[in-house]
Amino acid sequence: MSNNPEKLQPRLAKLNEALESGALDQARRMLNRGLAPVDVAHLLESTPPKEREILWGLLDPELHGDVLQYLGDDVQLEFLNRMDAEQLLTATEGLDVDDLADLLQQLPNTVIQEVLQSMEAQERQRVEAVLSYPEDTAGGLMNPDAITIRPDITLDVVLRYLRRHERLPDATDTLLVVTRRDELIGILSINRLLVSDVSVLVREVMQTDFHAIQATASDSDVATLFQKHDLISAPVVGIDGKLLGRITIDDVVDVIREDAEHQVMSMAGLDEDEDTFAPALRTSRRRAVWLGINLIAATIVSIAIGFFEDTIQQIAALAVLMPIVSSMGGIAGSQTLTVLIRGIALGHVSGANVRWLLIRELLVGMTNGLIWAVVVGAMSVFRFDDIRLGEIIAMAMVINLTVATLAGTLIPVMLKKFKIDPALSGGVLLTTITDVVGFVAFLGLATAFYL
Amino acid sequence: MSNNPEKLQPRLAKLNEALESGALDQARRMLNRGLAPVDVAHLLESTPPKEREILWGLLDPELHGDVLQYLGDDVQLEFLNRMDAEQLLTATEGLDVDDLADLLQQLPNTVIQEVLQSMEAQERQRVEAVLSYPEDTAGGLMNPDAITIRPDITLDVVLRYLRRHERLPDATDTLLVVTRRDELIGILSINRLLVSDVSVLVREVMQTDFHAIQATASDSDVATLFQKHDLISAPVVGIDGKLLGRITIDDVVDVIREDAEHQVMSMAGLDEDEDTFAPALRTSRRRAVWLGINLIAATIVSIAIGFFEDTIQQIAALAVLMPIVSSMGGIAGSQTLTVLIRGIALGHVSGANVRWLLIRELLVGMTNGLIWAVVVGAMSVFRFDDIRLGEIIAMAMVINLTVATLAGTLIPVMLKKFKIDPALSGGVLLTTITDVVGFVAFLGLATAFYL
Repeated sequence: MSNNPEKLQPRLAKLNEALESGALDQARRMLNRGLAPVDVAHLLESTPPKEREILWGLLDPELHGDVLQYLGDDVQLEFLNRMDAEQLLTATEGLDVDDLADLLQQLPNTVIQEVLQSMEAQERQRVEAVLSYPEDTAGGLMNPDAITIRPDITLDVVLRYLRRHERLPDATDTLLVVTRRDELIGILSINRLLVSDVSVLVREVMQTDFHAIQATASDSDVATLFQKHDLISAPVVGIDGKLLGRITIDDVVDVIREDAEHQVMSMAGLDEDEDTFAPALRTSRRRAVWLGINLIAATIVSIAIGFFEDTIQQIAALAVLMPIVSSMGGIAGSQTLTVLIRGIALGHVSGANVRWLLIRELLVGMTNGLIWAVVVGAMSVFRFDDIRLGEIIAMAMVINLTVATLAGTLIPVMLKKFKIDPALSGGVLLTTITDVVGFVAFLGLATAFYL
Repeated sequence: MSNNPEKLQPRLAKLNEALESGALDQARRMLNRGLAPVDVAHLLESTPPKEREILWGLLDPELHGDVLQYLGDDVQLEFLNRMDAEQLLTATEGLDVDDLADLLQQLPNTVIQEVLQSMEAQERQRVEAVLSYPEDTAGGLMNPDAITIRPDITLDVVLRYLRRHERLPDATDTLLVVTRRDELIGILSINRLLVSDVSVLVREVMQTDFHAIQATASDSDVATLFQKHDLISAPVVGIDGKLLGRITIDDVVDVIREDAEHQVMSMAGLDEDEDTFAPALRTSRRRAVWLGINLIAATIVSIAIGFFEDTIQQIAALAVLMPIVSSMGGIAGSQTLTVLIRGIALGHVSGANVRWLLIRELLVGMTNGLIWAVVVGAMSVFRFDDIRLGEIIAMAMVINLTVATLAGTLIPVMLKKFKIDPALSGGVLLTTITDVVGFVAFLGLATAFYL
């Protein structure tokens, strides 16, 4: 029978029951023996602070490292901060070098040094090699666990060499062929090894047109490379062409997921590593900054309206209708902004085709501006029995939707040029523009034609 | 030397040059021999319609299928639509069954039937098996290319059997152990095969606690499983436990990326498969729908303001300040909404902890409401020299930010319950609420205290 170990929900329910009824011994047993570390991590991330505290306390210290590596940065740091160097060392024993480096990168330098000091020389060197590269580079992602072979041996020798291992590193789909001086000269896929005649030399069957990643390459570029060529692992080399380690698809999947989360979260001024169950005070403080930035934007908009206070005093209907103009502009602009941000991220948008996009968006803005101008204009005439009011709001709609789509195109392109994250600041900039233009166009036209 | 084949940009620039100078023969050569199919697909997706047309015309027909499989649905359909069954058959020769099924799924049933009719019986059966499952299920993702072995042979026999293949399917990290009746009873990882004694039986070293995916499982569940357990491939079985095929990590990576894009795009009412360079008319039509939905929301807001037309007529300063209250509420609400939508997607949020989140958000909303109420109140007093106005806007801020965070928590939870995509409709719902509450609170309080 096929044995599917994915019966998580009922076990979590039982664990919760045990916790609530105070059967802590039972809960401890279920936590430490009934759940995989990745499931424990998921459980911790799904739990409010107090219960999280209790669960962590019930967890066997030797499982701490295994669980820690699966936690998001925010929750991870919460637990790391209260461990001393010795506890860290116990917890992280047996972790892969790249996972260990990920954890250490979160800690202050003095603690990192302390942990490194207490490691064996060889292990320390391997961890230091990874730590010497920023977290978001190929060097920071790599694991120095590659199996290397020489070009002048037969496949038979390779097979016997492999058989001397107790196990091969995870995601070993290729063996890396290096010279005596550790320069990477080819890769031998396990698939090729399994179907080739065992008497041929590695040199004869190895691939020489492989993807070697520079240690300084950005993690996004690594992700693109893996996706484009359906890679499972790829070697990392230094500028001297010497092999440093390899990157595996599981770490690349994390990069892809985090990049995607970053976009969604930063559109609301949030961090992608944020703990879902962060306490109220910390949450308030973090969110306040973004609210402050938006207050500046809202104040600018309010000042723009202020110029037309007299007009509003005379025709209050303008105040009733004006949010329609600004909100429709905001929606039209954010549609364009979203398409452009994605296009830039996918590498579709470049200097050569921005002009085409600008013209397309101009046409789209004018078309939808006209369509909805007619609808909103008619609605306004019907509601306030005033044809001029309908004409004015219709004109304002066309102006604002056209400006909105143009701003939606230009803002991300310009932010990109200044190396500012368009997902973070594009939205605020855009709605400030569409609000100001919407209100000024509508109230300005009203002032000109009514008064 | 390590041979890195990633020199794409200069080749694309040269190709563009050739196209612009009208050297079509040269461009044709570069397109068909100088670029990998995945790069041609990327080029097509980065090109406005007219140039795209020319490029497609220059592409060798036998490369069409290879290129098509890398295109987004929108662009893919554009080219598929104008091919007849015979052209489709030529284009798709040699594609993997899952990629072929992906392409066919886009076409009308009559065309699918025509293509299937002209296939060999065995290939047809394999494609039909995949087509019988919806695109977004494990069955729709799977490839029937698994290598299967029997439990009662020695590893030596397995190795000799593999050596009879010319190549193994991509991402073959495990061999699937089946009974005579094709029931899946275990998996043998290639790694295990390589390090084990060749004289032992498959049955002795195979894993029996493996992840077998039901063909009807959703693609998101498949993605979660792969991420949690760092899988490279996993077998797919029917309800009878019989092996149907396997899913590989490259297809799962596509699912993860598309899920992430879906969230970002649907927040602006867009489709994740949308062609960045869709023509103006098609783009206008698609976006108009979303603008229409938002117009309904804006009209509701406008009607709410309408109740206070008289108040505004008397104190126009209210119209100047009111967008601040609504916009700050919108921001606070969308921060909560974003955290909740992510929490639900990650499986962190469940019935058990929604209450904790609701209280946390209530505290956050009140805290930030109070902080910014003081700031906005002071600003208003300073600007209009009217203490009562400052008090009123401060009160409205606290009310709106508190309601906003509560709505941001409850909306996605309720939408989820009704199986409505919160990324699509959450934003409109939320801003309608924060706008209405913001305006009504502010203008209502002003009416009560001033008049």
